[in-house]
Amino acid sequence: MIITDKLTLHSNGKRVTYHNITKDVKRILETSGIQNGLCVIQSPHTTCSVIFEEFVHDFDFNGDEYLQVDLNRILDQIIPRELSENTNYRYPGQKHVDFLMGMNDPNYPADPGTILNGDAHIRASFFGASESLIIKEGALQIGTVGSIYFIDFDQNRERDRTCHIMIMGE
Amino acid sequence: MIITDKLTLHSNGKRVTYHNITKDVKRILETSGIQNGLCVIQSPHTTCSVIFEEFVHDFDFNGDEYLQVDLNRILDQIIPRELSENTNYRYPGQKHVDFLMGMNDPNYPADPGTILNGDAHIRASFFGASESLIIKEGALQIGTVGSIYFIDFDQNRERDRTCHIMIMGE
Amino acid sequence: MIITDKLTLHSNGKRVTYHNITKDVKRILETSGIQNGLCVIQSPHTTCSVIFEEFVHDFDFNGDEYLQVDLNRILDQIIPRELSENTNYRYPGQKHVDFLMGMNDPNYPADPGTILNGDAHIRASFFGASESLIIKEGALQIGTVGSIYFIDFDQNRERDRTCHIMIMGE
Repeated sequence: MIITDKLTLHSNGKRVTYHNITKDVKRILETSGIQNGLCVIQSPHTTCSVIFEEFVHDFDFNGDEYLQVDLNRILDQIIPRELSENTNYRYPGQKHVDFLMGMNDPNYPADPGTILNGDAHIRASFFGASESLIIKEGALQIGTVGSIYFIDFDQNRERDRTCHIMIMGE
Repeated sequence: MIITDKLTLHSNGKRVTYHNITKDVKRILETSGIQNGLCVIQSPHTTCSVIFEEFVHDFDFNGDEYLQVDLNRILDQIIPRELSENTNYRYPGQKHVDFLMGMNDPNYPADPGTILNGDAHIRASFFGASESLIIKEGALQIGTVGSIYFIDFDQNRERDRTCHIMIMGE
Repeated sequence: MIITDKLTLHSNGKRVTYHNITKDVKRILETSGIQNGLCVIQSPHTTCSVIFEEFVHDFDFNGDEYLQVDLNRILDQIIPRELSENTNYRYPGQKHVDFLMGMNDPNYPADPGTILNGDAHIRASFFGASESLIIKEGALQIGTVGSIYFIDFDQNRERDRTCHIMIMGE
């Protein structure tokens, strides 16, 4: 038996956006009735990732959990923001800007500054587009504090993002 | 056909613990009789990861393989240890410490110092909770020197950890 | 229904090799006729990874896409090349060199210098051996600009590499 579903998640466009989607994935699993098998959660966007991390009860003034604040700080050091054209990033080149501007896609507005997101692409490659979780006796094997997060590393654009979920099993 | 199984692995509590679980996963695959499909190996703990890496024949005096020694050194540089409260880590906040201390879980003893493991959480997010390996003609596609490692990045607590394995195929 | 297939990809042996294999994976999916399910793309080599990243229209003089140039630069900083024995890398030790030299494997020629690839091993562990993509209504859920790349992080040897693909679904 195979179930596919998706979530629509809103990115704030100001900083890295983290969505705790654990309850949504559990709900889709329960509705499917699948008892044993595999659950894959996957981003179709190349600046987003899915990770498995602990839920933390403390938040900074932005509303980000403390482990998210820590991860953002470390990423700013090892994969720094592409905040202007005066960085070491080659991405995006002129041909690529022309391509993206010519797509007439509402996700790519006529402002090349929003395409300066090379950092988000590299970060998403490090963390991967998907996470795969095992289902046993109707439950995701994620322990008592484990949570599933959809991350949008792109900090330039407020917009809706899609997260795909597939459950396969019996 | 779907098989689920699990391993219990002991973390040393003194440094990052690496378990080569290749033989265990191969044994579970052989017992299943599955010839073609997918094998997913997954940690339910948010400070552990599963990776695919070469087995090395040289060990340091701790018994760690040389690639593990190299990985530990690089991680100490880019995701440094949270050895005291006087670090840049925000994790764990007071509310989270209160939550973990109130769980009455034998895995969370009454010593908040053992919760200073923000580095282990961030590291585990980088490497991911799972690895997915393809099965073809009864064999994992891992080459002649490829091995599967379960890593516990938490260096604060000696304890048993669980590793889940799911094999789906025909 | 389960389909397994593989690609043979040639590494240049001079720098990190990136192969855009999106068209190949799409072709294998179309031939299978599978409409809903999962596609796993996996490297059996411990110095190679599979990632999901945007295709870029601009290339440097080596022919590498700009996001690849940016990723290479960042990796050279955080996981530096093992260019000689005078680095911080412990890998490979003498026992491991003896083992690899004794394999009589055409992939391991009689030149220990080519085994100085600890950086490639660590990098491949960070990015993971596989990527898992969801199939819905006959299509991979990779958006309009998303591409699948097979990366050989080993810069020491020109040789053929294998990439495994498995599609499971109905």
